[in-house]
Amino acid sequence: MSLRIALIGARGRMGQAITAAAKEAGATVVAALDQGDDLAAGISQADAVIDFSFHAATANVISLCAQHNKALVIGTTGHSADEKKHLLVEAAKIPCVWSGNYSVGVNLLFALTRRASAVLGSDYDAEVIEMHHRFKKDAPSGTAARLLEIILDERKLTADALRHGREGITGERTSTEVGIHALRGGDVVGDHTVMFAALGERIELTHKASDRGIFARGAIRAAQWVVGRPAGVYDMQDVLGLK
Amino acid sequence: MSLRIALIGARGRMGQAITAAAKEAGATVVAALDQGDDLAAGISQADAVIDFSFHAATANVISLCAQHNKALVIGTTGHSADEKKHLLVEAAKIPCVWSGNYSVGVNLLFALTRRASAVLGSDYDAEVIEMHHRFKKDAPSGTAARLLEIILDERKLTADALRHGREGITGERTSTEVGIHALRGGDVVGDHTVMFAALGERIELTHKASDRGIFARGAIRAAQWVVGRPAGVYDMQDVLGLK
Amino acid sequence: MSLRIALIGARGRMGQAITAAAKEAGATVVAALDQGDDLAAGISQADAVIDFSFHAATANVISLCAQHNKALVIGTTGHSADEKKHLLVEAAKIPCVWSGNYSVGVNLLFALTRRASAVLGSDYDAEVIEMHHRFKKDAPSGTAARLLEIILDERKLTADALRHGREGITGERTSTEVGIHALRGGDVVGDHTVMFAALGERIELTHKASDRGIFARGAIRAAQWVVGRPAGVYDMQDVLGLK
Amino acid sequence: MSLRIALIGARGRMGQAITAAAKEAGATVVAALDQGDDLAAGISQADAVIDFSFHAATANVISLCAQHNKALVIGTTGHSADEKKHLLVEAAKIPCVWSGNYSVGVNLLFALTRRASAVLGSDYDAEVIEMHHRFKKDAPSGTAARLLEIILDERKLTADALRHGREGITGERTSTEVGIHALRGGDVVGDHTVMFAALGERIELTHKASDRGIFARGAIRAAQWVVGRPAGVYDMQDVLGLK
Repeated sequence: MSLRIALIGARGRMGQAITAAAKEAGATVVAALDQGDDLAAGISQADAVIDFSFHAATANVISLCAQHNKALVIGTTGHSADEKKHLLVEAAKIPCVWSGNYSVGVNLLFALTRRASAVLGSDYDAEVIEMHHRFKKDAPSGTAARLLEIILDERKLTADALRHGREGITGERTSTEVGIHALRGGDVVGDHTVMFAALGERIELTHKASDRGIFARGAIRAAQWVVGRPAGVYDMQDVLGLK
Repeated sequence: MSLRIALIGARGRMGQAITAAAKEAGATVVAALDQGDDLAAGISQADAVIDFSFHAATANVISLCAQHNKALVIGTTGHSADEKKHLLVEAAKIPCVWSGNYSVGVNLLFALTRRASAVLGSDYDAEVIEMHHRFKKDAPSGTAARLLEIILDERKLTADALRHGREGITGERTSTEVGIHALRGGDVVGDHTVMFAALGERIELTHKASDRGIFARGAIRAAQWVVGRPAGVYDMQDVLGLK
Repeated sequence: MSLRIALIGARGRMGQAITAAAKEAGATVVAALDQGDDLAAGISQADAVIDFSFHAATANVISLCAQHNKALVIGTTGHSADEKKHLLVEAAKIPCVWSGNYSVGVNLLFALTRRASAVLGSDYDAEVIEMHHRFKKDAPSGTAARLLEIILDERKLTADALRHGREGITGERTSTEVGIHALRGGDVVGDHTVMFAALGERIELTHKASDRGIFARGAIRAAQWVVGRPAGVYDMQDVLGLK
Repeated sequence: MSLRIALIGARGRMGQAITAAAKEAGATVVAALDQGDDLAAGISQADAVIDFSFHAATANVISLCAQHNKALVIGTTGHSADEKKHLLVEAAKIPCVWSGNYSVGVNLLFALTRRASAVLGSDYDAEVIEMHHRFKKDAPSGTAARLLEIILDERKLTADALRHGREGITGERTSTEVGIHALRGGDVVGDHTVMFAALGERIELTHKASDRGIFARGAIRAAQWVVGRPAGVYDMQDVLGLK
């Protein structure tokens, strides 16, 4: 039988993308819910709940899922650190996926970057390059920041190691620095490359997003995966078997 | 104490590269041997033997290593399937690394390609692109062939799935084909890219070789790793912890 | 005063894109026309006519433009060689732009490829790589075919020189061959790279399309350029000053 | 008859590369000269003189060429602005090529970048990316600096427009900024990319150097070109017909 989904935040841009992705994947949105709707009634009919509504709404969604014994995929963002801590405790009582980025490809890039960083020692110079559209207001991107975290973590370095561009008399590159280069231009949805360069060879791991539907497809994949799992908070690395 | 190496095939191009790489890595070539030299005497002084001489010489090298209880790194190629089978049995009596390609980066690319192929289902179209210098006489390269093998294996496809370039009225691409594109030009040492393209995103894994010294450095890394291991035939995936 | 456009084929996909691009560029679509509408009345109000309707409609559009003394941008395709010949004669009586591809970037790539082919002799090996979405049914793309034409023309080679992928024992690459590699996958709108590789260096010229709006923007640019020119058939190389 | 070259600075690294490139091109080094040798005697036997010795030696070389009526290719660098001014006046009395970079490919990239900057207006965001080996001590590279100069010049911008990497809350990208990103790592000889990104498309122009012999080959090409020309100082844009 096809997966039955209760979608919260159904009228939003991500909600619409999830509706399309569900159809594509053979799943059914049995309840398309927004603020003001009877969430409990909708949730009770579903196998899994996907919440892309609003950060303040998520606490209530978790409670309802616990009450009705439903699996949950959390797509809201912008919780404070304290809120997040509390929500994680509650979410652990149900089968729940919580990730900052549901793209399958980006999550694979995270895992491959960790693997490459572990295998390639400090004689492989690491540089991260990202490109986004001209309208983006900050740098580097959240995805690039996560890639850098992974590299720093594997190399036992701190954020002091980061070089945001280079200019002037820099001296020779040290093996304890990590370059990060934020290109901006046009309508680029999001390109990320992690490069490891040694004497004689380079490894480059690249993700190119062309459509925001990848986040919706990943959320559906997460929902399909989490139904029937033991209670606990999982992330996309779990969903994709990348741990 | 620094690793003591007996190098067989020392005067060849790879032999010279290994001598340089050993120095770089703080290892010592205690015996630089070629045809006509007293291999046993040289081998007896070493911790590990590295053989980049000639395929017909390897049987004897394995015997001598077994006799003197030495670890071995086999770099000769061109053995027939039957020879190879026999040598593998003998080699398994000592700690031995045997790989068709000792580059750390290429071996990492193999592992990442396997991982990506496993995670990304058939809705990610796989294409392999390689570029080599104008003097290369065959296509695709051995490394590209191995990458294709890995993808076909993970996707339960056979070599029939391969598309060596495309021309004319091809019809829509099927999810059961794998493209392979062999570019030739200039003095390119060797570039390989594995691409996975879905609706909304692409993942690209690239290796670029700029210097043949990478094979020598990998062989030294293999020697350092294999000394003291239980008897058995290992490959570079073992050496690099990629299995 | 802003450019007044009569748009023929206004309800089609390209028609809609042109309406959007006109607005973006500060031009006004004063007449949005389709089959059945009074073309003459619409055309009479405009400075320039843009025709993206249907190949059989173009002869009449040219006549009307000549009658009303209007500039024309022809975007229809699929005319037979004979039709085309006849239309070109008629179109030459008015200021007219006629191009197979109105993208500014693609036309620039054509010009840069011609320039590079002229400057770089036959010791620079030429290879063309293109990637399109999985739904494309033929190979290579029209744009790639035009790039190849330019290279062959500058090098005094014929289509026999083309290598659509390489497989097996190819022998060394000759300087009189040109490689063409058609990748297919995902939803890639269209990537094209022309590569020139010599001993010691490579030049790569790349165009990446992410949105079909580039064709509409180029058509508007053509309309703005052609108004007030002497009668004659121009192409996008003229519009962009690339000749 | 093959070109006869007097090479000054013959024992240096570039001198050796030029000797090899001359042979490759069918030219003959009839006089291989260094400090202490009889330059006049050597120069008198040649069709063209190539000077890659030392900046302080060039004034004398120019005089000797003028005396013996020989064409000259100047490869020395590091002259002060005043020295350079004086030398340019003297050099103009003979057929002379003087360039900061003799690579054919890099000079082509300069010309294509100028052309692209002229055709693509300010709605195409310009970003330059360069990568060099870990031992390089300054950023950006001289070649990248020249590419930026060309872009700024065509767009009537000043060096204030440059963004050397981006970090933090940058706000949306403006059309009057030009990004420059200096990657460092491994043994990369020199990669340069100029990117123009608009809504819907990107153009990328890339040069990749793999061997320093490209500078020697270009100097030979300059010598072949300049012999028999009217007196005057030419650069590689002249040699390659790129003006």
